[in-house]
Amino acid sequence: MNKRLLLAAAALVAAPLAAAEKAALAPSEIVAAAPKADWVAIAPADLLVMDLAPGANGKPRRVVIQLMPPPFSQGWIGNVRKLAAAKFWDGLSVNRVQDNYVAQWGDADGDDKAKARALPKGLKQVAELEYTASKTSQRCEPHPGNRLLCSTEEAPLSNLTKSDVYGSAGFLEGWAIASSEARIWPVHCYGMVGVGRNLSPDTGSGAELYVVIGHAPRHLDRNIALVGRVIEGIENLSSLPRGTGALGFYETAAERTAILSVRIGSEVPGLPAYEYLSTESETFARYADARANRRDAFFNVPAGGADVCNIPVPVRRSTGSR
Amino acid sequence: MNKRLLLAAAALVAAPLAAAEKAALAPSEIVAAAPKADWVAIAPADLLVMDLAPGANGKPRRVVIQLMPPPFSQGWIGNVRKLAAAKFWDGLSVNRVQDNYVAQWGDADGDDKAKARALPKGLKQVAELEYTASKTSQRCEPHPGNRLLCSTEEAPLSNLTKSDVYGSAGFLEGWAIASSEARIWPVHCYGMVGVGRNLSPDTGSGAELYVVIGHAPRHLDRNIALVGRVIEGIENLSSLPRGTGALGFYETAAERTAILSVRIGSEVPGLPAYEYLSTESETFARYADARANRRDAFFNVPAGGADVCNIPVPVRRSTGSR
Repeated sequence: MNKRLLLAAAALVAAPLAAAEKAALAPSEIVAAAPKADWVAIAPADLLVMDLAPGANGKPRRVVIQLMPPPFSQGWIGNVRKLAAAKFWDGLSVNRVQDNYVAQWGDADGDDKAKARALPKGLKQVAELEYTASKTSQRCEPHPGNRLLCSTEEAPLSNLTKSDVYGSAGFLEGWAIASSEARIWPVHCYGMVGVGRNLSPDTGSGAELYVVIGHAPRHLDRNIALVGRVIEGIENLSSLPRGTGALGFYETAAERTAILSVRIGSEVPGLPAYEYLSTESETFARYADARANRRDAFFNVPAGGADVCNIPVPVRRSTGSR
Repeated sequence: MNKRLLLAAAALVAAPLAAAEKAALAPSEIVAAAPKADWVAIAPADLLVMDLAPGANGKPRRVVIQLMPPPFSQGWIGNVRKLAAAKFWDGLSVNRVQDNYVAQWGDADGDDKAKARALPKGLKQVAELEYTASKTSQRCEPHPGNRLLCSTEEAPLSNLTKSDVYGSAGFLEGWAIASSEARIWPVHCYGMVGVGRNLSPDTGSGAELYVVIGHAPRHLDRNIALVGRVIEGIENLSSLPRGTGALGFYETAAERTAILSVRIGSEVPGLPAYEYLSTESETFARYADARANRRDAFFNVPAGGADVCNIPVPVRRSTGSR
């Protein structure tokens, strides 16, 4: 009985044709059938690759993060690039895992000036205003992952989700984005990577990073910088033991997971190529609609909507043409 | 630097008085200051206690689940009580952990009639209609955890959250509940426990259970029975290694986590007492408002709202009077 539980796509594929013909496609089936042209390559230079020390089973543990395109958070992302180039994180560790919230890595001795690792020179202090971007931003520069935003006066935010309790939200260039009348900003969905900071007006350098591993903590939106999202290997962070100290910090050094290295993707030999489903594609619109109104065999009642974090943007290793 | 990141309550407590005076209370501080009268005892008979085999560090791994009160899902909950009384789960295992979705336990051989463990006699086949309850339900019976619902004609749903993309939602008797004009139903928030099933019209017996360990999969609402929520020890499920098979099933028996026993709380010697913050209390209203509009020291911009799953109902071990 158990193998077919909560099954969605998998059972439909395995079901006899008669049943499959009756039901609509599952979201994953819509994505699998997308034409190659609907997929957008992610430049290796926009990836951050973190290798953790192997776990008890000896297997490598790699986390691949896609950095956000302009106009979002570019001050912090510049710092992250400098930190990776300086090998700042090598030998540091994952220091905090708080259930249904975040996993966080950086310098466990960062609070202790005598012991803290020196930051590379030239890191920017970014202003709080940069947590959000202008809809008619002039700050963006030509960028491979940013096809539309710099070419239009107004960001063409696709409001595929209805306005929710947090305001308007939709998708832009592969990212979940919320908006007000004049500003747009990235959303704290599962897997998003942000910049730890102290109390305002500090905005963090980027040396302390966290990833969301629970229900979207949307109250952090506009209060902290988001710099990317995990596109592969999040289980290497989300399944780590929870810390038993305050806020999920580990209480002993032995509990921390060591970071072997963090590098920009273009510096990592043999890294696979990745691509995301264009959120401006017709396929994505159908996928988002199917997430909001499941009509495949397992479901009786369509939800009638989906919040922006319940429509994860599909990302995969690149395949050949199809 | 890192210890004070994303800190909310903790930093405020540690901050100098001048800073603390400026900022409003954090949600956790509002809860900590609640009068004892705002806490509602959870009867041990409404708890399900699952003990997993110890992990690599030898520590016990207990998961405590609170079962839902009437009028919700009582057919399945009756089955769960029979299954626990029959020690059905003892020696079975956690068979599936899918990242950002669910952890699931039961009989790994359930699909194989020759090898499947026999279910106890007298389990009900519950109708799909029971995924939801009537707002003017006559099905409920007097119950210690159900102070209001049976005493009123209409469920007094507190719509503390605005209508969201999924419809109306609020809190009732300590639970996050969604509603339509005539029906109410529990919501798939983080930590909620549901009943695995096959394709409709099967509704599951309760022998296969799962817990939500990611962003709220609200598309499952009204499509599957929810029977409770984890109130302690969820990290013993959410931090398990993810299964590498389809849907997060483990591919080998060795990867499964063994269940030592599952018992109703009143059968477990030495179990602590638990209580939840009454969702009908004034304290809860202030807590929910503070979750929606963080005004404590860490935050610059209040979100202006919170979805129902971003306002987790506080549950704690019972303390003495205060």
